[in-house]
Formats: sequence, C-alpha cells, structure tokens
Amino acid sequence: MQLDIGKPILEKNDALAHENRQLLDDKGVFTVNMLASPGAGKTALILATAEALGDACRIAVIEGDVASRVDAELIKAQGIPCVQINTGGLCHLESQMVAAALGQLDLDAIDLLFIENVGNLVCTSDFYLGEHCSVVVLSVPEGHDKPVKYPGIFQAADAVVVSKVDALPVFAFDERAFRTSMSDLNPLAPIFPVSAVKGTGIAAWTAWLKSKIESFGGLA
Amino acid sequence: MQLDIGKPILEKNDALAHENRQLLDDKGVFTVNMLASPGAGKTALILATAEALGDACRIAVIEGDVASRVDAELIKAQGIPCVQINTGGLCHLESQMVAAALGQLDLDAIDLLFIENVGNLVCTSDFYLGEHCSVVVLSVPEGHDKPVKYPGIFQAADAVVVSKVDALPVFAFDERAFRTSMSDLNPLAPIFPVSAVKGTGIAAWTAWLKSKIESFGGLA
Repeated sequence: MQLDIGKPILEKNDALAHENRQLLDDKGVFTVNMLASPGAGKTALILATAEALGDACRIAVIEGDVASRVDAELIKAQGIPCVQINTGGLCHLESQMVAAALGQLDLDAIDLLFIENVGNLVCTSDFYLGEHCSVVVLSVPEGHDKPVKYPGIFQAADAVVVSKVDALPVFAFDERAFRTSMSDLNPLAPIFPVSAVKGTGIAAWTAWLKSKIESFGGLA
Repeated sequence: MQLDIGKPILEKNDALAHENRQLLDDKGVFTVNMLASPGAGKTALILATAEALGDACRIAVIEGDVASRVDAELIKAQGIPCVQINTGGLCHLESQMVAAALGQLDLDAIDLLFIENVGNLVCTSDFYLGEHCSVVVLSVPEGHDKPVKYPGIFQAADAVVVSKVDALPVFAFDERAFRTSMSDLNPLAPIFPVSAVKGTGIAAWTAWLKSKIESFGGLA
C-alpha cells in the first residue's frame, strides 16, 4: 500500500484557501503573497511600499515566520496593522493559518494585505493561501542563477522584485542571464529592480501594484 | 483516524542514513552536510576550501539542487569529483539520494566529502544523511537576525560560517546581536567569518575542518 500524502494535504489547504479568497473578495482586500529566501528583504520592501503608497492605500500585513516577532515589531512600529504567525518549525504558511490571522484583522479597513511568507524558495509556492497575486523577491546577493535552480516558484510568480540593487557593484549578478532565464520560465511576469534603502525602483513597483488593486476594484 | 506522516518518513530516512554513515566510516571519508539559504555562497566556500587544503586532502562533492547542474559544473571545472542530485521539486536531500550518489563515487580516493544541500534554512535540518558534521553558512546580506527566525537549523549546527564578510560595509549586519543569539541557541558551535572571494577567514575555517578530519582518523 502506498499513501499519496501530498494530495489530500494540498486539497484541504486549497479548499480553505478558496474560502479565504471569497472573504478577501467580499471585503475588497487585494492580497499579495510575498515569497523569497530568508533575508531577501521582504519586510524592507513592504515598509518602503507602505511609505510610497501613503494614506491613499490602507495596508495590513500577515507575518509568517518559523519563530520570533522580529518583523512584526518592525511593521507595527510604522503604525501598520500586523498579525504574526509563528509556524513552530513548519517551512511555509498554510491557508488555515491565514484564515486564523484574517479573523484578527479589521478587513473593512484594509485595501491591501501583504502576506509575508516564511523565507523559503521551494515549499511556500505549493500552498495557495487565497491571495490575488504572488510576488517573488530575489535579492542581488543571492545571485542571478536562482530561477534556474528553483524554477517552480519563479514560474508561478505574478511579478518578480529584484531587491538590494544598491549592492549590484559588490556582487557578480548577471542581469542579462537573469532576464533570459525569467523569459524562458515566465515571460509575462514583470521584473522590478528595487532598492528599499535607496528608494530606487519603488515608484515603478508601486505603480504596478496600484494598477492591480484598481483592476480588482479597490481604491475606488 | 490521524496519520503521523512525519515519523515513518524520518525513521526510514534515518535508518538509511546510518547505513551511509557506516560506509563513510569504513572508507574513512569525513563528511560535511552544508546547509544554507539559497545563494549564501556554499559552492564558493567549498571551492575556496578545496584550494586552501590543496593536495593534502582529496575532496569530493555531492551537489543537491531542486533543478539544474550549475553548481556541479563549477565544482567539476576545478577537477573535483562531483555527483549532482536534482530533487525535482523536493526542498531537501534525503538519505536514499545520498546513498545513490555515494555509489557513484570512488570512496577509497576521498578524504573529505561535502554534501551541498538544497538552499533551505528549514527542511534540510530535519533529514540526517549520515554526515559527521553539519555546517550552516549564513551570508552577511541575509542579516544577523536569522538564528532568531530559523532557530532549529542553527541549534543543530556543528559550526556556523558567516560568508560574504567583504560585504559588511554595505549591509547593516549587527555581529554582536548575531553572536548573542548564537550563544543563546548553540554556545559550543564555533563561528567562522569568511569571504570566499577575498580569502578572509579561510585559514581558520580550514584549520578547524582539518582538526575534525584528523580526530576522525583521516589525513593520517
């Protein structure tokens, strides 16, 4: 006898993710699942995005981490509503965790919700959480070869943010090779080179995000 | 009814890992499981280590990746025997993959074997492969807070290499905070700050490695 363990887990996850999505649709909360390696700069990007969008867009964050409240404290310090999920060892968020976190947020007062997933370029992309789009953040120091080595997550992304571009002079990141592998894997996903610390590229990234929120019917 | 899925998978993995270990012991091959986030610099560290150890130590590498042969090509270009494992989506190596790879290496001609695991700070640490020690590589751009956010892997490490220290002037890496969290989690693990490109710290790291190989009975 062989048990196909993966299938029922994913089916159960997806069923609840569809319920999350229904709730987010009903409440008009555009939701982005942020995926990346550990330390790629997801939190810094969210903070820079919130600052750029300003009062026009009411943001909240669900923070996923194996342990600690480090990122949630950074987000809350900027006055942004935030719910921390500690997975206690699990390498990715699942939809029932997000459902519980949604219950702790005032969804009527949110236009844009970021779900900052656990830092992981593999497992996170298997679990749909109910989001409207998924964005992969790849930092320059990680190297241009990551789409070739971790194709699944880059293939499924709605957009890719290349973060820490202020470090380009220090690292051998071959932007051309990166763009070639992305156009092989996922030619329709826009690529946004950004530096959250310097502010580079934040305008183009937030303009795209705003257009997605507007097509969704938010920020009316 | 509830199935505890994790336990039988790990038990099966561990049983075969013990067989790997027995084989490695019999052949006198000191084996290091290299764990890190994607792009932390494991391959660069292995290449710098091989160069520093020189002919005194015969090295081989098992390369674990979700996809591609990028790293294996780099290793082979330096004349180092290398077996590539592509996990095809799986986020970590398991002992049966390593067993298959060991069958493709001439173990009588190897003193030191690096197993470069899939880039992942969570799942990889759950799977013992038969190694003599596990080393976590954390790169400066990832940030000093990683032990707090991914405690499991840092707690189990026999040593931690802090890589890309040549980028310290560019990133806000608080070395004191890092050392404090490491001494809370795993006070006995030595910490080696290195830059593979500049050669910084490689001597101390390879001296430690050599002492481990000698205690194991290798390099006689």
